Amino acid sequence: MYGAGDVRVENVPDARIIEPTDALLRVTRACICGSDLWPYKQMKPSETGSRMGHEFIGFIEDVGADVRTLKRGDLVIAPFAWSDGTCEFCRQGLHTSCLHGGWWGGADLDGGQGEAVRVPQADGTLFRIAVGADDPLMPSLLTLSDVMATAHHAALSARVAPGKIAAIVGDGAVGLCGVIAAKRLGAGQIIMLGRHPDRIALAKEFGATDIVSERGKEAVERVRELTGGLGAHSVLECVGLGESTFTALSIARPGGAVGRVGVPQEKLMPAAQPTFYKNITISGGPAPARAYIAELLPDVLGGRIEPGRVFDRVISLDEVPDGYRAMNEREAIKVMVKF
Amino acid sequence: MYGAGDVRVENVPDARIIEPTDALLRVTRACICGSDLWPYKQMKPSETGSRMGHEFIGFIEDVGADVRTLKRGDLVIAPFAWSDGTCEFCRQGLHTSCLHGGWWGGADLDGGQGEAVRVPQADGTLFRIAVGADDPLMPSLLTLSDVMATAHHAALSARVAPGKIAAIVGDGAVGLCGVIAAKRLGAGQIIMLGRHPDRIALAKEFGATDIVSERGKEAVERVRELTGGLGAHSVLECVGLGESTFTALSIARPGGAVGRVGVPQEKLMPAAQPTFYKNITISGGPAPARAYIAELLPDVLGGRIEPGRVFDRVISLDEVPDGYRAMNEREAIKVMVKF
Repeated sequence: MYGAGDVRVENVPDARIIEPTDALLRVTRACICGSDLWPYKQMKPSETGSRMGHEFIGFIEDVGADVRTLKRGDLVIAPFAWSDGTCEFCRQGLHTSCLHGGWWGGADLDGGQGEAVRVPQADGTLFRIAVGADDPLMPSLLTLSDVMATAHHAALSARVAPGKIAAIVGDGAVGLCGVIAAKRLGAGQIIMLGRHPDRIALAKEFGATDIVSERGKEAVERVRELTGGLGAHSVLECVGLGESTFTALSIARPGGAVGRVGVPQEKLMPAAQPTFYKNITISGGPAPARAYIAELLPDVLGGRIEPGRVFDRVISLDEVPDGYRAMNEREAIKVMVKF
Repeated sequence: MYGAGDVRVENVPDARIIEPTDALLRVTRACICGSDLWPYKQMKPSETGSRMGHEFIGFIEDVGADVRTLKRGDLVIAPFAWSDGTCEFCRQGLHTSCLHGGWWGGADLDGGQGEAVRVPQADGTLFRIAVGADDPLMPSLLTLSDVMATAHHAALSARVAPGKIAAIVGDGAVGLCGVIAAKRLGAGQIIMLGRHPDRIALAKEFGATDIVSERGKEAVERVRELTGGLGAHSVLECVGLGESTFTALSIARPGGAVGRVGVPQEKLMPAAQPTFYKNITISGGPAPARAYIAELLPDVLGGRIEPGRVFDRVISLDEVPDGYRAMNEREAIKVMVKF
């Protein structure tokens, strides 16, 4: 990506092992993330550009001398952050704060929207899966790299629990997976705030019990009506804009919790005072997807959750620029890149 | 209080039972709260004025026809909010969000900085104690109406746990009780951010292991040094200003939690982005003191905690205006009113 709206497919030097803890990965599936749309809308023109893509699955081509748990031919999921798996934060399950980890792409590292990736800290980062590269579950497995794990993080951060009322702000792929996550954790009522008919339809199939298509104050009022005047116990903020954050904080009941997973676009958070008087807990951040794959995988393999249904378009690498356009114009919910 | 700096002691009509769920309380001890200083600094001149005081202990003088658990002569602690004890939020232990509760004083209700108080929802609100009105533990018992309960709430909201590092922003009575609360919950390191020698001395006696007297960026840097570069697991925000909140949010480690109990003076919360990337949980609000008295009382009665030591001045009702002045000028940590 060279700037807002400027995504190019280019030949770059082949990815290769540099550190002994690296693996070399041949990508089989990748996707475009809602968070990729922030730079797609706002990035200042850059001469060097930024490699893109942080959600991918692929085969190990080669491993460095210190890699112990992976070998050539393994099919692996790469979470959206890389991490050593051994530091204080990884041991707590907060791999996105790994002391020796980081983020894909940019100027220095490969991105998943490419044929091959050098994976730092391969043992800590990659999660091996025992399926074929063309398994029909591949779309759902791919969501474990980010959107389904992120939605699970939102639901945990919002303290979704059996019988509770969950509300989800945002009808993108993460918000839709948020419905799955809330249902999976036992929410008794699941309110989706969204207005696009195809997304609403999918949300209902995933388990949403109520749809709120109003915005702003009207949305807050409608959620209040749907919750006996009290608000939701758990709110999943899956957008990151100031307005959506304000809505999320406003529909939580006293003592409730808001799980933020939409990347915040504002430096300040609204509603410092109402959230205080209502004892609302604000939690969340970048999901430690690496920690959640093991928990979510059995439900994907068993067919109990189908987060892969958020993919409504499959493209080739050459079509990636148009994939960005389609997601940005909300023509597609989420785009998969098949290599 | 008729405006900033304008506190008067006046004769008003006698408090009396109005609702059958009321009790009439003769106040024996009350105090001035750090939160009373916000209107003392900022209140616009008012013709009607606002009755003040929300922390008090007293004898029941009379009860309404529907009061079942209290009788004339009982000595009781009044928490800083009144509550029915039976609504959905009270049953969860969040009495400060009681659907039929509210706050003392103002234009319509009596305040604790007065001789007598009509107590709404008396059964739900008041907590009977089996000691004499002049018991030497009276100062510590009085802190259960607010500051010690509030500090406990900050510590719980900040998820203080055995062996964890707690940091406390604010060296007022709540911050000092925060040291007690953090130690009581087993914190292994307790960092007090404060600079007033008498308060630092008391914090150390209460169990603070480290004192940080720097401010702003320097304070953040110093806490980082004291915590192996990572920050505190648990931060108690006991002030409520924008700057103190920013400091509190900045010294929490990834995955850590900040418990807010200082009444926020700003509409927006700082650090929306850094707290997101570090997965910091922001929690807290008005403490459900009513829920905590039963838990804290045995430690007060057993002499294991001595939060009453935050009182460094005792005055009569006539001296209340000067008590405000003394606390506002930080001449006194906390002032007790003895009737």
